[in-house]
Amino acid sequence: MTKKRIVILGSTGSIGRNALAAVAEHPEAFEVVGLTAHGSAELLAAQARVVRPRRVAVADASMGLALQELLAGSGIAVEAGPGAVAAIAGMEGVDAVLVAITGAAALQPALAAIRRGRTIALANKETMVMAGALMRTEAAAHQAAIVPVDSEHSAIFQCLEGKPRHHVKRLLLTGSGGPLKSVPAERFDQLSRAEVLNHPRWKMGPKISVDSATMMNKGLEIIEARWLFDVSVQQIEVVIHPEAVIHSLVEFVDGSMLAQLGVTDMRIPIQLGLTYPDRLPTSLPALDLPAIGTLTFERPNPSKFPCLEFGYQAARTGGTAPAVLNAANEACVQAFLDGTIPFTKIPSTIETVLSHHRLVAEPTLDDLVGADQWAREESVRRWRNGR
Amino acid sequence: MTKKRIVILGSTGSIGRNALAAVAEHPEAFEVVGLTAHGSAELLAAQARVVRPRRVAVADASMGLALQELLAGSGIAVEAGPGAVAAIAGMEGVDAVLVAITGAAALQPALAAIRRGRTIALANKETMVMAGALMRTEAAAHQAAIVPVDSEHSAIFQCLEGKPRHHVKRLLLTGSGGPLKSVPAERFDQLSRAEVLNHPRWKMGPKISVDSATMMNKGLEIIEARWLFDVSVQQIEVVIHPEAVIHSLVEFVDGSMLAQLGVTDMRIPIQLGLTYPDRLPTSLPALDLPAIGTLTFERPNPSKFPCLEFGYQAARTGGTAPAVLNAANEACVQAFLDGTIPFTKIPSTIETVLSHHRLVAEPTLDDLVGADQWAREESVRRWRNGR
Repeated sequence: MTKKRIVILGSTGSIGRNALAAVAEHPEAFEVVGLTAHGSAELLAAQARVVRPRRVAVADASMGLALQELLAGSGIAVEAGPGAVAAIAGMEGVDAVLVAITGAAALQPALAAIRRGRTIALANKETMVMAGALMRTEAAAHQAAIVPVDSEHSAIFQCLEGKPRHHVKRLLLTGSGGPLKSVPAERFDQLSRAEVLNHPRWKMGPKISVDSATMMNKGLEIIEARWLFDVSVQQIEVVIHPEAVIHSLVEFVDGSMLAQLGVTDMRIPIQLGLTYPDRLPTSLPALDLPAIGTLTFERPNPSKFPCLEFGYQAARTGGTAPAVLNAANEACVQAFLDGTIPFTKIPSTIETVLSHHRLVAEPTLDDLVGADQWAREESVRRWRNGR
Repeated sequence: MTKKRIVILGSTGSIGRNALAAVAEHPEAFEVVGLTAHGSAELLAAQARVVRPRRVAVADASMGLALQELLAGSGIAVEAGPGAVAAIAGMEGVDAVLVAITGAAALQPALAAIRRGRTIALANKETMVMAGALMRTEAAAHQAAIVPVDSEHSAIFQCLEGKPRHHVKRLLLTGSGGPLKSVPAERFDQLSRAEVLNHPRWKMGPKISVDSATMMNKGLEIIEARWLFDVSVQQIEVVIHPEAVIHSLVEFVDGSMLAQLGVTDMRIPIQLGLTYPDRLPTSLPALDLPAIGTLTFERPNPSKFPCLEFGYQAARTGGTAPAVLNAANEACVQAFLDGTIPFTKIPSTIETVLSHHRLVAEPTLDDLVGADQWAREESVRRWRNGR
C-alpha cells in the first residue's frame, strides 16, 4: 500500500488534531507533507516535529520568525504570510488536502488545492456557503473530489457513493432541533446567553451553539448540500432527529432510502475524508442500536425557526445571497454573544439585511468578499437604527 | 435506452405479479421474453397475452396441453415438464432472470440462469439456504450477479453496492420480532394456530407466519446472508426492530453504518432486482419519518427463540446442515399447521434432527436433495416416536 500524501490546513484546531490522531493510528497509511495553522506556533512546531512534513506555514507573517526558531535545524521549510497557506495547499506531490481552516480564510487555499486536482477533505462551511458555485465549477474543471467532513454531509456523501445522480430524489438533512426545540417561541426575546449555549446533546463552541439554537446551522447546511451534491433546493429537506444517530439520508427515485448512522464522533468523517475512497479501522465503539433503544423524528417548525427558511431562500436566490446570509449571521451571533442584541434580533436583522442586499447573480471572488463585508456593516447599521 | 430482456420464473405468484406490475409501469424499460408458472395455466396464459413473451413454460407436464390451447394462435412457444422451466431460465437473449419460484424447485432453474451469466433477481430462499456455496461458486465462475429480492437482503445489497468487501465489519439483519415477541415463553406450548398466525404488522402466508413466530425466518436469513455477501457467520447479527422501517444495516470497519429504509412494499426490492444496476421510479408514497415518529431496537432473545441459534449453527457447520435445517423446519411447520404437533415441538424436533444428521461437508446437488429428503422423514419419525 502506497502512503497517501496529505496536507492539513488548520492542524492545531480540533479537526486538525483529530486528523493527526488518525495519522498516528495509521502510520502505514499516511505521509503528512504539509501543515498550516493560524493560532499557535508552539503547537504547530510540536506537531511538525512528530510528523515531519516537508513544509509548514502560518498565515500571520508576524508568527513566522517564532516558528522558524522553534523548528530550527529540523530541515522543515517554514513559510509565513497571507499567501503561504495557499502555497502549501497547492504544493507538489500531494494526494489529499484537509481544509480545516474556519471562516472565509479557507477560500483561497481550498481553491489552490482544487486547481491542482487534489482530493479535498472539506471541514470548512464558508467555502461552500459563500462560493459553492465557484468551488463546484473549479472542482469539475480540475477533477478534484470534494469529500465533506461534517457529519451531515459526510452521511449524504456516503449514501450517494457509487450511485448515479439521476437515481436521487431527495436529500434529508437531520438535525437535533437544538437547545430551543421545546422552549416556547414567546420566551425567545428573554433568552439569556447561558440558556442558548446550553445544548442538550453536546458541548460545542459558542458560535455553532447559537447557530444550533436559531437552526441557522441547518439553513447553512441546505446551501452546502445544494452545491456539494449538485441537487436543486427543492430536493433538500430537514428532519428533526434529537438522538442524532442517523446523520442524514438520501431518498432514491424508487422510494428506497439509505441512511448513514454512527456514534457521534468527528473522527469517522475526518478519517474518511483522508482515506477516501478507502476506509480504515477506527478504535471507536460500535453503534449499539438496542442499547440506544429509540430513535425519534419530527418535522421542523419554520415559523419558530425562520433561519431555516432563510437558508432555503438564499440557496434558491444564489449569487451573492448565501455570502450575505452567512456574514449577517456571523455579525448577529457575535453581537448576541457580546450582549449587544437580544436573541430574536438575530433572525430579524438577517431578514432585513437579506432583503436590502443588491444581488450579484454570477459573482467573482471579489464580489463575494465585498458582499460579505457589506452584510457585516449593514447588520451593525440595522440594529443601531433600531431595526 | 435499450430494453432489458427479462424472464420471470413463477409469474403467477405474488412476487411474479408484482414484477409484471413494474413491467407494466415501465414498458420502455423491459421486454419480457419468458414466463413460467406452477399453479395456474389460465393466469399464465392471460399474462402471456399481455406481455407477449417468446416462450412460456409450466413445470407440470399435465398442464401443458391446456396451456397450449389457451395460447393457440398467439405465436408464443409453450413448453411443459420438469426441464421446461430450467430451459426457459437458460434461454438465449436474456439479461435478467427473476427467480420467484418457491422451494427447492428453484434450484435447477436458478443454476441454469447463473451458468448463462445472467443477472439473477433472487426471491427464493431455498436456493441460498440449501445450496449457497454452490450458487456462489457458480455465480463467480460465470460472472452472474445475484440481486436478492427479499427486503432484508436487498437492504444489505443496497448498502454494500460499490463498497469493497474489506470495508465491511458486520451485517445487521433487522426483524420485527414476530407475533410472539411479547408472549411469555411459558405459554408457547399452549399456542393455537390462530395466535401464531396473527402477525402484529402484516398479513403473510401461513408458512412464513410460523417462521416469523419461531424466528426461524431470521435463522434462515443468516444462512442466506452468509452466502449472498460472502461474510463469515460471526459478522452477522440480528437486531429486533418492530417498526420494520430500517430493512437492515451494514457496519464498516471505521464504525460508520449504512442502513436501507423504505415503506413496507415488496415492489421496491422486486423492481430493483429487475432494473439493477439502474433504478426506476415507483408510484409508492415516500417514507415519512416524522409521521412515523419513533423507531425502536431490541436485542433478540435466543433462549426464547432457539431457531435463531439453529440458523447460526447450520451456517457455521455448512455442508448439508442448512438443507437439513430448512427441510426439518418445513416439515415441522406443516405438522404444526395441520395440528399434528404443538408449537414448541417445532424447535425441539429441528434440534434433534440436526443433531442426528450425518454431515456431508462438500455436498453435490444430489447430496443436498438427499439431505432434504432425509430431514423430512426423520422429522416425522421423531415426533411419532415422542421426541
